[in-house]
Parts: sequence; structure tokens; C-alpha cells
Amino acid sequence: MLVDGVPYRTIWPIEDGRAVRIIEQRRLPHEFVAVDLGSLEDAAAAIRDMAVRGAPLIGATAAWGVALAMAADPSDAGLGAARATLAATRPTAVNLRWALDAMQAALAPLPPDRRAAAARARAAAIADEDVAINRGIGDAGLPILAEISRRKGGAPVNVLTHCNAGWLATVDWGTATAPIYRAVEEGVAVHVWVDETRPRNQGAALTAWEMASHGVPHRLIVDNAGGHLMQRGEVDVVIVGTDRTTARGDVANKIGTYLKALAAHDNGVPFYVALPSPTIDWTLGDGMAIPIEERGGDEVTQVWGRASGGGLDRVRIAPEQTQAANPAFDVTPARLVTGLITERGVCAASAEGLAGLFPERAVA
Amino acid sequence: MLVDGVPYRTIWPIEDGRAVRIIEQRRLPHEFVAVDLGSLEDAAAAIRDMAVRGAPLIGATAAWGVALAMAADPSDAGLGAARATLAATRPTAVNLRWALDAMQAALAPLPPDRRAAAARARAAAIADEDVAINRGIGDAGLPILAEISRRKGGAPVNVLTHCNAGWLATVDWGTATAPIYRAVEEGVAVHVWVDETRPRNQGAALTAWEMASHGVPHRLIVDNAGGHLMQRGEVDVVIVGTDRTTARGDVANKIGTYLKALAAHDNGVPFYVALPSPTIDWTLGDGMAIPIEERGGDEVTQVWGRASGGGLDRVRIAPEQTQAANPAFDVTPARLVTGLITERGVCAASAEGLAGLFPERAVA
Repeated sequence: MLVDGVPYRTIWPIEDGRAVRIIEQRRLPHEFVAVDLGSLEDAAAAIRDMAVRGAPLIGATAAWGVALAMAADPSDAGLGAARATLAATRPTAVNLRWALDAMQAALAPLPPDRRAAAARARAAAIADEDVAINRGIGDAGLPILAEISRRKGGAPVNVLTHCNAGWLATVDWGTATAPIYRAVEEGVAVHVWVDETRPRNQGAALTAWEMASHGVPHRLIVDNAGGHLMQRGEVDVVIVGTDRTTARGDVANKIGTYLKALAAHDNGVPFYVALPSPTIDWTLGDGMAIPIEERGGDEVTQVWGRASGGGLDRVRIAPEQTQAANPAFDVTPARLVTGLITERGVCAASAEGLAGLFPERAVA
Repeated sequence: MLVDGVPYRTIWPIEDGRAVRIIEQRRLPHEFVAVDLGSLEDAAAAIRDMAVRGAPLIGATAAWGVALAMAADPSDAGLGAARATLAATRPTAVNLRWALDAMQAALAPLPPDRRAAAARARAAAIADEDVAINRGIGDAGLPILAEISRRKGGAPVNVLTHCNAGWLATVDWGTATAPIYRAVEEGVAVHVWVDETRPRNQGAALTAWEMASHGVPHRLIVDNAGGHLMQRGEVDVVIVGTDRTTARGDVANKIGTYLKALAAHDNGVPFYVALPSPTIDWTLGDGMAIPIEERGGDEVTQVWGRASGGGLDRVRIAPEQTQAANPAFDVTPARLVTGLITERGVCAASAEGLAGLFPERAVA
């Protein structure tokens, strides 16, 4: 999407694919800088340390990580090592494994001397497919916003979103934001409530930056505020992303999503989850079986931002003696989800709903 | 309660009541300092700028503010001006008006030359009454924790709390924390999940500091995490405070409380509200009629704490162009509240429940 009027993606090849360039997301919203990844180790570190994040972008970065690895060592051992290294970076993201499987399927049958070029082509295709999928999510979700806009006589549609399921979490368009960007494109007035999304503040740092950079009206709120706004009628619809959705429609997403789903349900506010189909875990029914990543407590006790002197710093908000717990995701049961917005259309959050849109994937 | 083994209150008279000393709560948890209030203006500023906060402590500070004003100008005009100045500091807190009414009732009938001494005595009594009330809340709530402990075979009772309804929010004991401190006193093992409570982080800064200072096992969590912990069975009971509870049991409390109540209800976790009876607004039935304070957006976009260099600083977490909305409270409907813990005992969150405990106050 646009950054001060210039179109960007989050990852793109340079030097004929011998390296890739990414937006260094840990510096946003304060500094907009791109960094180059030249090796498997660079790509793995970028995923593990969250220079890139978001399920689809993690998948695309992993695919490019395999391509960078093939340029250095295209042997079977090299391919296996690349896969193992990248798979270990983030345990919850199903797209990561999906992308690694896709690369494996494309490369394993080839002789080693053809793998580097094939890997570059397949990684580029995975990135392009992600853009097409997200644009498709936008097309599918647009009528939801357009219909609310119509009911409100053209007054801005108040959309609440959590974390960053924006274009920064994908290659372009985003998932939860794709319907918003499509609405803007079509002249449907929107206003976005941006949950700051503690502890890492992806909403405040990334979604708010996206909205500001693309020129979408928005206001930042603390994660605590959404229920109150729904009680007062100030939220028309909630759209969030997901890191993994089960075949029955349970949704694992950034910690706190479940609380917003409860509030939406209690107030009759539609609650949609936007997801590219690679995010669906067809092997799993019950969302409570999804392993939840527990991250370090420093993310809770310290907050990063621009200090009063202008530099970037962390401030500690808790007593030195206090320890923190930091579960990174929660699971929203399907019963709280109004619908799933996929690249093939909107469906109910249920085995039947998903099977209707993806009959070739659903397990009987 | 204890600070490194020494018992403290949050406000106490010095120099025979010609001034009062408070704990400067905006410096916690990083610095433990006391400051003196010598005038009406000092007291009003302490309330308005949140050097003191929490409904009962605001009431006690307002009472002392009137006493300080009477020392300077005990005329009817002086009394009226003191009342008006203090009433304007925080619009939501009902205790503030309750304390001002009590001071008015004690002082208005007296000749001006007797008002200063009477005001000091009444303010000291209001503070002592608050301590007795909170101790009573602790006694009433203790059996709830003791019973859970018994059912768990003595394993620690996991209590989740939001914001700071601790002794720092009162004169001593706290409201939501009083049952916890009583449990500790009685040898009932507890572990407290401390919601950080954005935007002002009263949980991270104050409740965690209280727990650490008094030696209560606790862990800090982001406000987003509580629902997940309840889904996983890691919360046995929620106890929060309130700034105002209606005669039908609707509860206005720090923003985000409603979300925790929804999660507790969804997971069968008991959700209690601890309240001193002056916090009950007998004139109001429907909590949705409670005016909600909207505070400045800087509280959302900037986070305060100890910087890496050791000094206290604020960091900005959002883009410069991004505006924030900042409602300070939300309303939890009575249907989500398991019980109200008052100084007279525990009752249902309903007109009938409250009328049973406070028959002399309930409106027929």
C-alpha cells in the first residue's frame, strides 16, 4: 500500500534474487527503514526476532529464506537444514510450515544445480499469490462495509481492529485491513478504531502507521476500551486477522482477540475474521488444542518508543521485583465469530461453512 | 499495609493537622516519596492530577482539603468555595461528593471560629472510617478465598484484579485487595494476576508495587491476557474495585473491567466487585447513565516509566499523526457480577441484594 503516496510491498527481491529487502518493522512507526537479507540465517533471524511478523509475511519470508539457502547450498542436506532452521523460528504460525512445504515440494524433485533458480521463482510466486489472496479478501469483505455504510446513510463505518493484520503483516493489502483499503478505494467512508495491542503494541506502532501513511481516518485506543465503545454503539463491525484457524472455525489470534469477540457478541456487533486459506489448519478441529506461544516477560514490563529526547528507548513500567507472564495468542471459539472472510468469499465459522468454500480441503 | 516491613497509610496528618502528607503515587513504582499538602489548592491539585487516586482516597483527600481550607478561611464563602473547587476535580467519583457532603453537614451548622478544628476531626474520622470499612470488606471477602483454597486442597488461589483497588486507592487495606491481604494474614495461599491496566498502568505501577512491597506472590499480565488465562483454568476468582455502583448493581470501574467480566461469565469464573458503601450511588439505577470521563489522548500515545539510563521518562508508541481516544471507565452490567463484597457482607448485584444489606439507604 502507500507510504506517503509511494506504493510498497513488505518484501521484494533485489540483485536478481540474490538477496531480498524487507521493511524493518521493529523501527516503525518512528523510522521507516528497509534492510537486506542475504542468507538463510538472515531470514531466520528476521522471523524469529520479529523484524517481519504476521502469518502471511512470515510464510513469504520463509520461502525466500529457502531460496537464499539454495543459493549457498542446494544439496538435499542444505534443503533439509534450511527447512529445520526456518520451522523452528515461530511455533504457532501455520503459514510458516505451509510455505516450507510448498518450497520442499517444488525443490526436492529437482537436481541440486537447478534448485537455486527454481527456489527464487517459487518464492516470488508465493509472494505474488499472497498479494492476490489478500486482494481477494478485500473484495469479499468490501460488501460488508458497503452495506453498513448504506444503512448509515454514508456516515463513516466504524471498524475496530486488533493487532496488525495489515499490509505490514502480509506482502501487500493485509488481511483484516484489505476490506478497509478496498472500501477507501471505492469511496466508502471508514473510521478505524486501532487497538494498541499490548504487549508489543503492533496496533499503535504498525496499524496506526499504516492508516496514517495511507491516509485512512483512525483513532488509537487502549485494548481495554473496545468493550465500552461497543456498549455505546461506536463500533459498527470488528475485523481481525488470525494466525491459525481450525477446520471448525476456532480462531487463534493475538492475545486479547477473544475479549473483543465476547464484547462484540454481547453487544450485537458483527465480528469477522479475515484469513487467507493457508492460515486454515485442516488437521485440527478444537482451537483449544492449538499450542500457545509464551514469550518473555520483558515484553510486558518494558515498553518501547520514542523518548522525550528523540531517541528510541525502553521504559520499565513495573517494580524490579515483579515478574510477568506473557501468553502471545488466545483462541476465539467459532460460536463468537459472525463470519470468516476468505479469498473465496465469506462463510460461517464452522466446519460446514469452511467446507462449502474449500470442498477440496475439507476432511469428510 | 507494609512497605518493606513498615506499616503505612496513604494519607496522614502532620503538624497537628495543619498539613497532611500523602504518598506521591505518580512516582511509584520507581520512587517511594511522600509530599505535604498545605492548602486547599494543594489538595485539589493532588486529586485532579492524580497524585492520589482511587475513590476512597479521593474522598479522604477531599475531606482533608476542606479542613485545610477551613484553616485559611472558615467563612461560609470559604466553605462554599472549597466545596466547589474540590467537587470539580474528578467528575466520576461519587465518594468525592459523599465526603464533601459529610464535611458540609459537620461544618455548616458551626460558627466559623469552630470550623477549623471540627474539620480536622471530621477528616481524620473519615479516614479512620475508610480503614474500618475496608477491613470489613476484607473480612467479608476472606471466606470466598478460603473456600476456594479448601476446594483446591490448599494450592494457591489465583485471583485476577484490574487497575488498583489496593490500599493505595484507599486510606489502608484497599477494597479489591482487602480480602487478599486478609487471606495472607490468615495463611491462605494466594497468587495474584495483576492486569497492567492501560493507559495509566495502575496495575503495573501500583498493584504490583503493593504486592511486591507486602510480599504477596503475583505476576503482571497485559490487559489482553485475562480471557486466555480464564479459558485455561488459571484464574479462580476475579475481584475488582469500583468508582461507582448503582442501586441495581451496575458497576462503573476502570476501562477494561467489562471485558474481564464478560470473560469470567463465559468461563464460569466468579466475578466479585469489592466496594465500600459510600461508593454506591443510590440515586441511579441504570449504569449506562453514569457519565464517563474522557481523558487526554497523550495518556494512550505515551507511556511513562524508568528509561534505560535510569531516569523517569515517557516514550511515544504511536505515529506523530495518530490521535487517540481515551475513555477512562466502563460499566459492567449487574448480570455479569457474581456478588458485591461490602463492609456489611456479600450480596447479589441487584436492587434486592443491596437493599438487603443497606435497608436504610435503599429507595423503595
